Amino acid sequence: MNKKMIARMLGVLFALEAAFMLPAAAVCLCYGETGAPLRGFLWTIALLAVLSGALLLAGRGATRDFYAREGFIIVALGWLLLSAAGAFPFYLSREIPRYVDAFFETVSGFTTTGASILTNVEAMSRGLLYWRSFTHWLGGMGMLVFLLAVVPTGKGSGYGIHLLRAESPGPSVGKIVPRMRQTASLLYKIYIVLTVACVGFLLAGGMPLFDSLCTAFGTAGTGGFGIRNDSMAGYSPYLQNVCTVFMALFGVNFSIYFLLLLREWRAALFDEELLLYLGVMLGAMFLIAVDVRPLFSGFGEAFHHASFTVSSIMTTTGFATADFNVWPQLSRSILCILMVIGASAGSTGGGIKAARVLLLGKSLAAEVRRMLRPRSVNVVHINHRVVKDDVLRGVNVYMAAYCALAVVSFLLVSVDDFSMETNLTAVIACLNNIGPGLDMVGPTGNYALFSPFAKVILSLDMLLGRLEIFPILVLFSRHTWNRTR
Amino acid sequence: MNKKMIARMLGVLFALEAAFMLPAAAVCLCYGETGAPLRGFLWTIALLAVLSGALLLAGRGATRDFYAREGFIIVALGWLLLSAAGAFPFYLSREIPRYVDAFFETVSGFTTTGASILTNVEAMSRGLLYWRSFTHWLGGMGMLVFLLAVVPTGKGSGYGIHLLRAESPGPSVGKIVPRMRQTASLLYKIYIVLTVACVGFLLAGGMPLFDSLCTAFGTAGTGGFGIRNDSMAGYSPYLQNVCTVFMALFGVNFSIYFLLLLREWRAALFDEELLLYLGVMLGAMFLIAVDVRPLFSGFGEAFHHASFTVSSIMTTTGFATADFNVWPQLSRSILCILMVIGASAGSTGGGIKAARVLLLGKSLAAEVRRMLRPRSVNVVHINHRVVKDDVLRGVNVYMAAYCALAVVSFLLVSVDDFSMETNLTAVIACLNNIGPGLDMVGPTGNYALFSPFAKVILSLDMLLGRLEIFPILVLFSRHTWNRTR
Repeated sequence: MNKKMIARMLGVLFALEAAFMLPAAAVCLCYGETGAPLRGFLWTIALLAVLSGALLLAGRGATRDFYAREGFIIVALGWLLLSAAGAFPFYLSREIPRYVDAFFETVSGFTTTGASILTNVEAMSRGLLYWRSFTHWLGGMGMLVFLLAVVPTGKGSGYGIHLLRAESPGPSVGKIVPRMRQTASLLYKIYIVLTVACVGFLLAGGMPLFDSLCTAFGTAGTGGFGIRNDSMAGYSPYLQNVCTVFMALFGVNFSIYFLLLLREWRAALFDEELLLYLGVMLGAMFLIAVDVRPLFSGFGEAFHHASFTVSSIMTTTGFATADFNVWPQLSRSILCILMVIGASAGSTGGGIKAARVLLLGKSLAAEVRRMLRPRSVNVVHINHRVVKDDVLRGVNVYMAAYCALAVVSFLLVSVDDFSMETNLTAVIACLNNIGPGLDMVGPTGNYALFSPFAKVILSLDMLLGRLEIFPILVLFSRHTWNRTR
Repeated sequence: MNKKMIARMLGVLFALEAAFMLPAAAVCLCYGETGAPLRGFLWTIALLAVLSGALLLAGRGATRDFYAREGFIIVALGWLLLSAAGAFPFYLSREIPRYVDAFFETVSGFTTTGASILTNVEAMSRGLLYWRSFTHWLGGMGMLVFLLAVVPTGKGSGYGIHLLRAESPGPSVGKIVPRMRQTASLLYKIYIVLTVACVGFLLAGGMPLFDSLCTAFGTAGTGGFGIRNDSMAGYSPYLQNVCTVFMALFGVNFSIYFLLLLREWRAALFDEELLLYLGVMLGAMFLIAVDVRPLFSGFGEAFHHASFTVSSIMTTTGFATADFNVWPQLSRSILCILMVIGASAGSTGGGIKAARVLLLGKSLAAEVRRMLRPRSVNVVHINHRVVKDDVLRGVNVYMAAYCALAVVSFLLVSVDDFSMETNLTAVIACLNNIGPGLDMVGPTGNYALFSPFAKVILSLDMLLGRLEIFPILVLFSRHTWNRTR
């Protein structure tokens, strides 16, 4: 294993994290929070600088050998360590007194989950609120994709593809343009343009700048940390609608935007995953609006809240305008299922992804045909292209791993003796990077009451969900550490 | 499609069902229930005889063309129609006044689920109680396996394998002995010997003959219909222990017994599925016993109830000695997971089956190895033999179908607006042929309060679970009915 390269990459990541903390420190200065919050940031930045220097020193003279294994390990270790370090400002400022809580909150931020242990968000200082929301934005597209976009890789080094594959969500992510650096940089450009547009629309609706930035970070990363105790419920319907639309947009596969830039309208708009994603979303909005109609003054208001909630849950954001925990069982069941399906592959959203659901459905139909006519040829097509067998196998194995993980986590979290609905939806909400679940962890509740043990399990679930399981599995696999290749 | 052959087979099945109702009618006579119950049986037998005759007439001159499709259709239609007819005695005797309830109860019987809509079992007449329990015994090994065992098939007809494959549970069922008729007959011989042993042990503990027969039928089929309102709680600890052991025995793959008959001790006792099945079972017993210890007078009593409950739930029987609905959350979560895992392939139990769990776990490990070393050869072994790719693909597709089915049923059942725990565990309990779930459908509850719509959905789930999804899917697939081959 190329340990020097791993050290070097981690060194660069720490330096980037330190740089990204500077704006948060600046926010502290702007709002006159020069006491504990600012000190927390400065100490953490100093610590990161020292660590980064040490790692870069240790990584001198690294060879260019770089395989899938190195990619997985850098991604898994990187995310763990960035979260561990990102928790320090919360902890050092004493705004989150226990480190395990600060770690949970930071993992929840970077993985764009949005699950919180805070019972009173509004009591937090502006600088830390800004950092908390900014972790969503960083985690949404991925820190390593950012690293690829800004750090020159040199010719033929080829580690870009392994890093991008290990960090990007969904089964179909490949090269959009021939060179990795261009791909990464293009993804970030689209991401920044959409985020700026979101901020613009929010400002136009009269939202203050600070609120607009934090809300846009949470929307773009499909994270869902709010800066008010009632999440989005206190904002005007216009602002809520802006979020509904932008959450849905950030849940779309970013390669669709690339196709639109190339003016390939047909390929973009008739993409099978996009149609499935939008179809399920609109269907769920309509069904829930009908189901919750009696709780609101009219169908219009019901549809307003149903569409916001569906967009928020399906893209795994987690903002709320209404307490869907008190909605009828049918709506709650639909939301539970949307949680698991999640957004599109190659978006900032979590969940199993629409592309996987599509592949599973199609391979199921192919299997029934195969049973009826064993000698016929049965291949699965997506967008008129044949899906290779190893992609299908990958999806199936991913589903098996996902189920196994959900089962084990559910069991471990049960030790806390809360209701089955709480345990089940907490695990689903963390594994799919949504944030709120139902019952105790519903939109008006939070994760504060869980034991430290359960919080660690749920933190791991968030990381496993964001990195799509395998990087973390590889990190803990004895095959990784057994022999040096 | 060979419609004549399908008609002929269904005709034979109806004749067999009529014959199997005769003992129940005899029980009516023994206990002097010569009114409505006896009339119900006699009318149903007459109806079945007429239908059977008509079908056999329609099936005259059937050709010998018989493929997987015909196998699936006979199994799916056969089970649906046998249940529809088997419900008549309950309905005609007015002991279950609504037909949808009688159908639910009969499907629950044949599929060895044991979910009941009855609120007072003890009010039912002896003849109907006998028939209700006997459906478990028939459904456990399968009516078509019985048909294969007793009806001469003639040389080279080859339909046995298609029928056995379509009806038998689990991924690994193949030929135990070269000829299908021998396989079917051997399975039934083992089944009968074990059932008789169970009756013997129950009689030895002082249980009345009628109770012993009904309890043994429920145990052998891993069904779980009780004949008392408190299920097994009123019987002595000895009798409960007999059930614990026999439930576990009927959840073992029957090919293990065949290996034991051949004195292949090593192959039998070190079978990987058997070791997983027993390991999970013993582990769960111990964990739950520790967890529920404070609810009982000592560890011994706690282990007694824990072992009975685990054996009952994991083999998907559903008998109860204690109300596990009030146990701590950890125990309830473990039971939930055991419900889904279920018993062994090739046993009378339901669930996903230990063999599939084993295959999924091993293919997951192989996939991680493949990711780390893309060029290495990674095959999955079970019992030192390589598992073929199409077996693995079948398991994966089965899991996908299972999840999709669970999700859709959960959604449809939610319309009744009961708690999420009720809906979720009702679907799991029916799909895995267990019987009791948690909350409203817990061991002291029942399925009476569900709407007729939900009862039909749950009935279909029981059939889909027992027949392992594909026969029913094939029945409703447009490819089946599109063209005649």
